Parts: sequence; C-alpha cells; structure tokens
Amino acid sequence: MSKLLIVGTVAFDAIETPFGKTDKILGGAGTYIGLAASQFNVDSAIVSVVGEDFPQAYLDMLASKKIDVSGIEIVNGGKTFFWSGKYHNDLNTRDTLDTQLNVLADFNPVVPKNYIDAEVLMLGNLHPSIQLSVIEQMVKRPKLIVLDTMNFWMNHTWDELLEVIAKVDIITINDEEARQLTGEYSLLKAAQKIHSMGPTNVVIKKGEHGALLFHNDNVFFAPALPLEEVFDPTGAGDTFAGGLVGYLTKTNDFSFENMKNGIIYGSNLASFCVEKFGTERMEDLSKEAIQKRLQQFRQLTQFEIEIA
Amino acid sequence: MSKLLIVGTVAFDAIETPFGKTDKILGGAGTYIGLAASQFNVDSAIVSVVGEDFPQAYLDMLASKKIDVSGIEIVNGGKTFFWSGKYHNDLNTRDTLDTQLNVLADFNPVVPKNYIDAEVLMLGNLHPSIQLSVIEQMVKRPKLIVLDTMNFWMNHTWDELLEVIAKVDIITINDEEARQLTGEYSLLKAAQKIHSMGPTNVVIKKGEHGALLFHNDNVFFAPALPLEEVFDPTGAGDTFAGGLVGYLTKTNDFSFENMKNGIIYGSNLASFCVEKFGTERMEDLSKEAIQKRLQQFRQLTQFEIEIA
Repeated sequence: MSKLLIVGTVAFDAIETPFGKTDKILGGAGTYIGLAASQFNVDSAIVSVVGEDFPQAYLDMLASKKIDVSGIEIVNGGKTFFWSGKYHNDLNTRDTLDTQLNVLADFNPVVPKNYIDAEVLMLGNLHPSIQLSVIEQMVKRPKLIVLDTMNFWMNHTWDELLEVIAKVDIITINDEEARQLTGEYSLLKAAQKIHSMGPTNVVIKKGEHGALLFHNDNVFFAPALPLEEVFDPTGAGDTFAGGLVGYLTKTNDFSFENMKNGIIYGSNLASFCVEKFGTERMEDLSKEAIQKRLQQFRQLTQFEIEIA
Repeated sequence: MSKLLIVGTVAFDAIETPFGKTDKILGGAGTYIGLAASQFNVDSAIVSVVGEDFPQAYLDMLASKKIDVSGIEIVNGGKTFFWSGKYHNDLNTRDTLDTQLNVLADFNPVVPKNYIDAEVLMLGNLHPSIQLSVIEQMVKRPKLIVLDTMNFWMNHTWDELLEVIAKVDIITINDEEARQLTGEYSLLKAAQKIHSMGPTNVVIKKGEHGALLFHNDNVFFAPALPLEEVFDPTGAGDTFAGGLVGYLTKTNDFSFENMKNGIIYGSNLASFCVEKFGTERMEDLSKEAIQKRLQQFRQLTQFEIEIA
C-alpha cells in the first residue's frame, strides 16, 4: 500500500466564534490533514514538533487513527505552537488575537526512516525552507507532492516559496492568494500562470464558494455543501487537503478524472469539519456519514441534459 | 406550444468597465430576458415602455428573434429609461452614475390580448405594484410565475413585495438580498424562510460563484463557468433568468430535475452575456455555441465516484 507523509503544524488553538469560545484545544494543519486522510485507512505519518506541554492523550488519539506519530518531535522544556483567533459574525473573516511560535521557531523536520520513500508527500502550510528540507530528505522523488501555502509566505519568503512551488504536482491556495501570486484577477489566467511555475494541478479554495481544480486546460469545480450552520471554520482548508491526499494515496491514481473525486472527498470532509469546534467532529466521524454525504454532493451537482 | 410573457424594462444603458466605455446602448431586464429566452424558440412577448427616442431598429432586432413587441408601449414625447454605471476593477461591484426613470415613472403595463393566457410569466425586476398588475391581468393563473427582484424594493416597498412573493413559484435573488429578506446568514436557512413566504423554488444568484436552487429539501448548485475575462457583467442576472424561463417554457416540465437543467442553461447563457458589452454577444449567439458550452459545464461538474 502507498504511504502518505504529512508535514505540518501540531498545535494549540483557542477559538472564538459567534457560537462560543474554547480554551486551548488541539489544532494545527498537520493534525487536520492527518485526521482527514486517516478516513482512507492509508499508512500515514506526521512530521512536526510540539513542546513538553503537549498532552500525550492527543498523540494517543492520533496514533489510534493509525497515524505514525514518531516524526512528531517533543522538545523538552519547550512550549507548543499556539494560535488564537476570533471569527467575525459572517465566519468568513477572522482576526488573529495571538500567535506564539514557541518550538516552531527552531523546527528542524526529520522524516522517519520508514517514510523517506513515501509515495505521496503533503506539505502543510509552513515556512518554505521547512517544506524544502522535507523534500530533500526523500530518497526518491515521491510520485505526488502536494503543497499548501498562504499569503504570509508570499509576503516574506518569495524566492524560497517559488523554489518549493517549482517542485510540486499540486498546489492548494485560496482565490485571493492565487491572485496575489500571479497578479491576475481571472482565476483561469491565474491558474495558467501557476502552471507555468511548476504545478500541473492548481486547486483554488474559495471557502463557502467551493473549490476549483485546474489541470492544464481542464477545469473541475466542487461546491461547498450548503449548511444550516457553520460552527467553526478552523481547519476546513487543511481538512480539504487531507481528504484530497488521503483519497489519492489510497487509489494511487493521479489522473484528472480521479483527482476530481479527491476534490469531492476533500469538500465532503471539510463540510463535517466546520460543524463543531476544532477537531471534535473529525475525531468522531464514521465512514457511513461520509458516504451519505457523498450522495448529497451527487444530488447537489449532477444533472442530465441531452446535448444536441 | 407554451407561451412566455415577460415584463421588464427596455432601456438605454451607458456602461464603463476597466475595458472601455459605451455611449447609450440597448439595455434593460426585459431585453436581456427576452434575448436569452429566444434561444429556445418559444412564443414570447415583452411588456414594457419606452420613449419616442427609442430606435425602431432595436424593436426590429427583438422582433427578428420572434419576440412579440406589441406590448412595448411607445410614449409620444417621452424619454426612455436610462441607467449609467461604472464597474470597479474586480467587476464584482459597481457605482450607479445616473438613473433617469423617464417614461418608467408612469408605467402602466398592458398585457397583449394573446398573452393573457400565457403558461409562463416572468416578472423582471420592477416596482412590485407593476408586477402585481401584470399578474392580475392574466385570465387564469399561469402554470409558472417567476419573480426577479432586488434590495431596492425591500427597502422601499416591503409590503407590496411580500404580496408578490406570496404569488410566485420561483424567486431569483442574489445572496445578499436573500439574507436581507430573511435576516438569516445561512443561505439554507434563508431559503427555508423564503419557502414559507410562498415560492416553492428559491434561486440564489452568487455571480461569479454560481447559483443555488432550493426546492423544499432539495438543493442544486450550478457553478459559473470560469472565464479568462469578464468584459461587462451588465445583464448577466437577467440573462440567467431568461435562460431558465426559456428552457422551462419550452420543456413545459417544472419538476426539480428539469429545473436543474434550466439553471444550467441560465448559467450557460449568462457566461456568454458577459463576454461583450451590453447585448452584443446575446444578439449574435448560435445554438451550436450554447451546446458546446453545455459540454464544458458537464466537464466542469460531473464526476464518477462509487458510493460504498
């Protein structure tokens, strides 16, 4: 079976939404990606770093999902990366209240020996030099490298970011970031420019407005499922990416047609993620619920028109 | 064959976009709806009003599309409704530079005799009392009444608007208007509230983010086709509505399944509308081009996942 290596933050979040607020709870891109990918029963490992304050129970929970946590370094005397944010009433925008890098400031990722030949590599949102370091530790080029990044790295580490982008097969960014990266307002034109930077596949995340997959001249669109209530959007983008790479690792088919399915699975899992605070919904999600929601996605998008 | 009656403005527009500006050109909701619906070869008529300054050539063009223009009153000595607007760089927002109601101020719609029994009635965006007057002129309740409206009428003619809403089968409004009409941020909840006001079908237009159709507990989503360039968004919403009602009139099938197809046709035609200034693209659009784009919509949205 193919192996999936994930590099990403494992962290504490404190979240405030119009529906309530949390103390420090489990968060981080690596966590959300790992939980989503675990739905596909693939062999996966997370490379990350936490402090001495990080509860063993969280690591145990991840391990119980068959995620290899041996690559999550625990720094003695160190404190875990902490992010705190408050969402506005529309839940589409948020203010960061606090960011404490802590042990993340000196993070030096070490890929576990039995994952240096992983077929699929997922680079969660992190400093591009950390992402590059992980790529360089692989004994052979993975069959598929997926990159998630954000505007912060465009503003502060432009050259290193371009270096990573040139090395990956899929990039996932949001619509504003795609525009910032390329200077193009049209997402079609932006995707064309990003193709020329390296990635064959460009996934543009539009939050409640769905996601677009550009694969050379082909385009696919997956809507977000209309929900009665979005409770907490934290981790939705990472869950989307985790669903995508989990599905692609399991099926070992990186064609455009199969990538469509991965995008649908990503949207599917993200629609669960936002239903409760933090990772709560993702920790307790059944395969039956996912399959049922897949049926909803089909009803939402499939139509039959005879083409003349 | 079923007949489609359209009430809506026939007007002059002057448009400025980042790509250029026009003098006074043909515009108006009734015009765009009629042009889009004419693609389906249905018997249609427009009820509207223009001034003496309105070129006969525009009426001839509409008539050449087999649109009955006998219900477009020409007011001697009157001036045609005029709107002027300037789009911002992102083309998602615009400023109205000038609005001259002119003959529209005293518009008293008169439905042509051979359309008082039309099966489908499309109420374009106008004062609710004008929309009500048209409904009252019908000798029997049309099989399908479709309403387009906007926030202006929510702000100024609330009670009359609710009276119209209670009488229609489909309402088309944009996402912000759905929220304003109901006080619900979630579009799913907003649609549920609008159902309780009357319409069985709620179509929420999200511009470049596509359109949602809510039919009781069923939801369907049609994306907007990603385009290299949106040249002029004027009339896109009316074209969408015209495609929807044209298709429904032609097929005479108002089931949820067939309404999905209507929504796809509406999105299809709207994607052409924005490619050139004003009505230019819609006046010169072939059935072959529409069928080809239908294939693109299929590729954009259709996927095959085996559901376990």
